[in-house]
Amino acid sequence: MTFTLFAPQAVSAQVAGGDGLGHVPFAMTRGTEGTWTVTIPPPVPGFHYYWLVLDGVDVNDPGSRTYFGYGKETSGIEIPEAGVDFYAIKRVPHGEVREKWYFSKSTGEWRRALVYTPAEYVTHLSRRYPVLLLQHGMGEDETGWTRQGRAQFIVDNLIAAGKAEPMIIVMDRGYADKPGGTPFKLTAETSGRDIRIAFTRFEEVIVHDLIPTIDASYRTIPDREHRAMAGLSMGGMQSLFIALRHLDTFAYVGALSAPMMRSVAPDARFGSNLVGAFDTKTAYDGAFSDPAKFNDRVKLLWLGAGTAEQTLQQSISGAVEALRKSGVRLVYFESPGTAHEWQTWRRDLQDLAPRLFR
Amino acid sequence: MTFTLFAPQAVSAQVAGGDGLGHVPFAMTRGTEGTWTVTIPPPVPGFHYYWLVLDGVDVNDPGSRTYFGYGKETSGIEIPEAGVDFYAIKRVPHGEVREKWYFSKSTGEWRRALVYTPAEYVTHLSRRYPVLLLQHGMGEDETGWTRQGRAQFIVDNLIAAGKAEPMIIVMDRGYADKPGGTPFKLTAETSGRDIRIAFTRFEEVIVHDLIPTIDASYRTIPDREHRAMAGLSMGGMQSLFIALRHLDTFAYVGALSAPMMRSVAPDARFGSNLVGAFDTKTAYDGAFSDPAKFNDRVKLLWLGAGTAEQTLQQSISGAVEALRKSGVRLVYFESPGTAHEWQTWRRDLQDLAPRLFR
Repeated sequence: MTFTLFAPQAVSAQVAGGDGLGHVPFAMTRGTEGTWTVTIPPPVPGFHYYWLVLDGVDVNDPGSRTYFGYGKETSGIEIPEAGVDFYAIKRVPHGEVREKWYFSKSTGEWRRALVYTPAEYVTHLSRRYPVLLLQHGMGEDETGWTRQGRAQFIVDNLIAAGKAEPMIIVMDRGYADKPGGTPFKLTAETSGRDIRIAFTRFEEVIVHDLIPTIDASYRTIPDREHRAMAGLSMGGMQSLFIALRHLDTFAYVGALSAPMMRSVAPDARFGSNLVGAFDTKTAYDGAFSDPAKFNDRVKLLWLGAGTAEQTLQQSISGAVEALRKSGVRLVYFESPGTAHEWQTWRRDLQDLAPRLFR
Repeated sequence: MTFTLFAPQAVSAQVAGGDGLGHVPFAMTRGTEGTWTVTIPPPVPGFHYYWLVLDGVDVNDPGSRTYFGYGKETSGIEIPEAGVDFYAIKRVPHGEVREKWYFSKSTGEWRRALVYTPAEYVTHLSRRYPVLLLQHGMGEDETGWTRQGRAQFIVDNLIAAGKAEPMIIVMDRGYADKPGGTPFKLTAETSGRDIRIAFTRFEEVIVHDLIPTIDASYRTIPDREHRAMAGLSMGGMQSLFIALRHLDTFAYVGALSAPMMRSVAPDARFGSNLVGAFDTKTAYDGAFSDPAKFNDRVKLLWLGAGTAEQTLQQSISGAVEALRKSGVRLVYFESPGTAHEWQTWRRDLQDLAPRLFR
């Protein structure tokens, strides 16, 4: 795969990017006419964020569309996967993705959720539907699951094939900073205390603002047996944090490539939470401490990771092992050969969605 | 207004942008720490496209959101207008903007339209609504009217105040190139023939694919008296071209900052079509040649321009004068002090929408 940039006056140029693109950065070479190029080994299939480093400045490729990632507009490229079309737009009935603006009392701001309604929603006017809250990762926003993830096409295809229940999918922006406050940013150094503060704010938005708005605005089945929360990476952490504290509200929870928090010690750094034994008795305020009760209450605990995520995959599979050993029932899915990237999460959704609400 | 870019290794940096930003480009000055800055005179209020020129390469500002303009992702900045809130999100009932995917037989491709449904659409389930097709300009796409134009908030506010009829607004991508063909690009050199070919292709999509899809998918009132087409710049040219040829389909037409074509001579260059007398007998295949018939048939012909658009405004107002003199009834609106830019088109929509379907 070759990248090209016309920049006769530039002194240096590189291609950089996210997991899955390869061993970034790749140095570009200047041709005689001022066109810089680099050919990189074919990346794994799927969607990859990337950007150019032009004389030391990270900029988008002027020839690319942009996608919200890394906290800003970022170039992206789609590598087709041979023989795989579960996320392609096909000749099947298509749902709509709707912009839903609502006022959040919790944060004092207008927020935008994106709401997928299945194709039959506009014709089966007396039918009500279950709801999946589906969250993006750190640095992304509410557009990630439909633009990078192609969630609407994955679910359109599953529903058309009779493999998933028709459902409403709600994608909100996973930040709930107080107006004027410092935006939350999750890094290895973030303390357990700060994570809890940020997630508790988002929990308020979800529980007090978003869910009532969705139940008032759409034909939902507004009970726990018909409500799920799942997310990728930070969004999976939020899903575990929020759904496990609100099992009166959610019966299904999914965490995709999401760090399983070992402890919630206020002073522990996030990075240190990923290593060591996963104590099923204390994790998540004891949500897993009574496996029989948990299994009775939670219809699905879904965990997943890409096999190329290395440290994170080991951390998650370690937690999976401990949970299973303790008697907690769960589904664990591995995406072969993919890392912390959207192809993993597309495959995750393809596995997860058919298990919901049935 | 000050722009800042951290680029210690850069040799030169400038701020450039669209109409309304000022006399671009503005040279940035390097500070001792490698931070480049420039302070520019306050631009007129509204939305402005802009970009940075980093060592000769047009790149987006890494600190900006991007908006589709100039045929690519482009940085943008919003300058508030004191005391003006008609395009603000307010505590009124909000409609939804829905992504509607449909297969176009005309072009053999899946296309995405954005469809605004008014707030009451989801509660007044037996009511049917009129439809406005609303088109973006050259280099933009179907996202322009809601992201740059804030059309959904303008119309939410108008409907809430009882100033506009609740309506469905359909925003499609104004290109209909054959798959694999050269994308249409409108410049001063484009011939009348090429414009006609490109617009005829888009006309096929509108008439044969889009309108039937919308009428089958939404609770529309599917007759000419409840269908309008309007657009800005190239989108206004398309609206005149298509709607005036299909007065069995449209009764309302609006052209916002849109060149009024003097002739459709196949070999005439687009640039030459803007100057000289506007012959009301021959323009648009004679659509205006019988003013009494036109006035009887067309419920609204709406034309507008910004007073700072200079050549274009003179061209449009010249056509307006000729049309009025010939007896054609029309509304002409001028946006004071604004050029070929979104603040003009927001004001246009604020004037136009209340005149539709009443």
